[in-house]
Amino acid sequence: MSTSPRKKLYIQEVSVRDGFQIEPRFVPTEQKIELINALSHTGLAKIEVTSFTSPKAIPNLADAEAVMSQIDRVEGVLYAALVPNVRGCERALACNVDEINLFMSASHTHNLANLRMTQAQSLEQFRQVVDYIDGRAAINASLSTAFGCPFDGEVPEATVLDLVQRYIDMGIQAVSLCDTTGVANPAQVARLCNAVKQRWPDLVLTAHFHDTRAMGLPNVLAALQAGVDRFDASLGGLGGCPFAPGASGNVCTEDMVHMLDAMGYDTGVDLPRLLEISRLLPEIVGHDVPGQVAKAGPYTRRYPVPDAVRNI
Amino acid sequence: MSTSPRKKLYIQEVSVRDGFQIEPRFVPTEQKIELINALSHTGLAKIEVTSFTSPKAIPNLADAEAVMSQIDRVEGVLYAALVPNVRGCERALACNVDEINLFMSASHTHNLANLRMTQAQSLEQFRQVVDYIDGRAAINASLSTAFGCPFDGEVPEATVLDLVQRYIDMGIQAVSLCDTTGVANPAQVARLCNAVKQRWPDLVLTAHFHDTRAMGLPNVLAALQAGVDRFDASLGGLGGCPFAPGASGNVCTEDMVHMLDAMGYDTGVDLPRLLEISRLLPEIVGHDVPGQVAKAGPYTRRYPVPDAVRNI
Repeated sequence: MSTSPRKKLYIQEVSVRDGFQIEPRFVPTEQKIELINALSHTGLAKIEVTSFTSPKAIPNLADAEAVMSQIDRVEGVLYAALVPNVRGCERALACNVDEINLFMSASHTHNLANLRMTQAQSLEQFRQVVDYIDGRAAINASLSTAFGCPFDGEVPEATVLDLVQRYIDMGIQAVSLCDTTGVANPAQVARLCNAVKQRWPDLVLTAHFHDTRAMGLPNVLAALQAGVDRFDASLGGLGGCPFAPGASGNVCTEDMVHMLDAMGYDTGVDLPRLLEISRLLPEIVGHDVPGQVAKAGPYTRRYPVPDAVRNI
Repeated sequence: MSTSPRKKLYIQEVSVRDGFQIEPRFVPTEQKIELINALSHTGLAKIEVTSFTSPKAIPNLADAEAVMSQIDRVEGVLYAALVPNVRGCERALACNVDEINLFMSASHTHNLANLRMTQAQSLEQFRQVVDYIDGRAAINASLSTAFGCPFDGEVPEATVLDLVQRYIDMGIQAVSLCDTTGVANPAQVARLCNAVKQRWPDLVLTAHFHDTRAMGLPNVLAALQAGVDRFDASLGGLGGCPFAPGASGNVCTEDMVHMLDAMGYDTGVDLPRLLEISRLLPEIVGHDVPGQVAKAGPYTRRYPVPDAVRNI
């Protein structure tokens, strides 16, 4: 295992978008803003703030404009938003978003189910958005179901590489490979990430994993070993997948940072502060969250020596 | 990442010992026996059946004799028991146990707290047990807190290597490195396992991890890459650590097998059967268990195409 001590990594927070969008109850705008402001001071590289999509489609993020315009903008943090089309892009730019995150699926049926469009139509929309933005914001393009699809099953590596090529042909320089439903395994992650890194060494590549089947952090490890240095994660492990009720959500930010810190990587993130913020989540969302380190404390935690053995 | 397709791995089940011993309520003897009998037919290499310790110390395993004598003995499965001393060894041998698992801690204070003995006293007991057994059962020796101690903190690698050397000097040929309280990280696991494999290439080495801080499966991956091929795990992720209430338990057997299968390893384990058995656990122990794959289904699970998109 190559551990590259103190290698710089970029931790990208998605809880307030990927997490909150599927919460059973609406998180009040004020609470969203407070949470994002707190997260802004932890050393995260990017925060995906919200999604400029139809409020009917995602009622929990109906306050996209309010949140994006009212949060503090801390230097060094990139404030991103998910955007499905030119209309969403217009709304996001009006709020002075730093980065637009476009998305489509690597598999036919998931794209239809999630976006009501064929993949060709999605690519056409990508082109329109890229033209529309015309340099006014950074662009990242996410590829959902890049490691497998709940409807179509296996997604050939060639399909993923072809779609990344199409992104790059449009001038997109930052891509996220997303394991949307938590089906990726570390061997597969190593293969795909190595293939992408080999073909496009200068691509800004993000790995986005879900812990649905307990492979979230193992996949982070595999991507890391393949040279990936940017990771999406969600505070408390919020998020999840409508296809796996009861299962875990996205990779948990503080658990990921804790592991990477312990391994000697430079995440730039203040773990104690992140843990403090994470411990507010159960009250914000009204239920327990999957994150482990917030419950167990970091590996450096010490316990008092039991009295019974003090004098043995 | 070296994935060594179809490399044979040995999966060793500890739920009925490491898991049940800390359950808040006693699991009836009959249910233990039924569970072990079911597990015996899944392809597991070893089952740690019980612990021949004082019923006062671990009331949940007070039925050690009954369980060990009444379970079916399926060929190809090694039936082991944890044993603290000669008296426990006598009891275990009377029940025709295949393997005795001895244990002590790599750290001073944990050994005192757990065994009310110094490490020197523990090593002396090991010697007595080895002499007493005199070849009538196989012997494995476990080293608790090999990756860190909740009282003493860091455990130097040299201490671990020295203790393994002492085991080997007594004639012990099988050793488990145990991350008793879930503090190990993958870089550390890689270092320690590589050091042990390099110094004693023929040692039968088991890695025993807890998922207390979400590093269970990442650590399995790291140990695997260091050449370890034997892993302890606990059905449903039962088990845990008295120091981290609310946190996850041992590495979950079915989640581990699912990941290793998906990566192309030969675990020998029938995953669908294991999942069926795991789904009985919440009723047996009276609470939800941490395992993810039993909830989400394996990565190969497919969902019907939504009607709304069938004709797009």
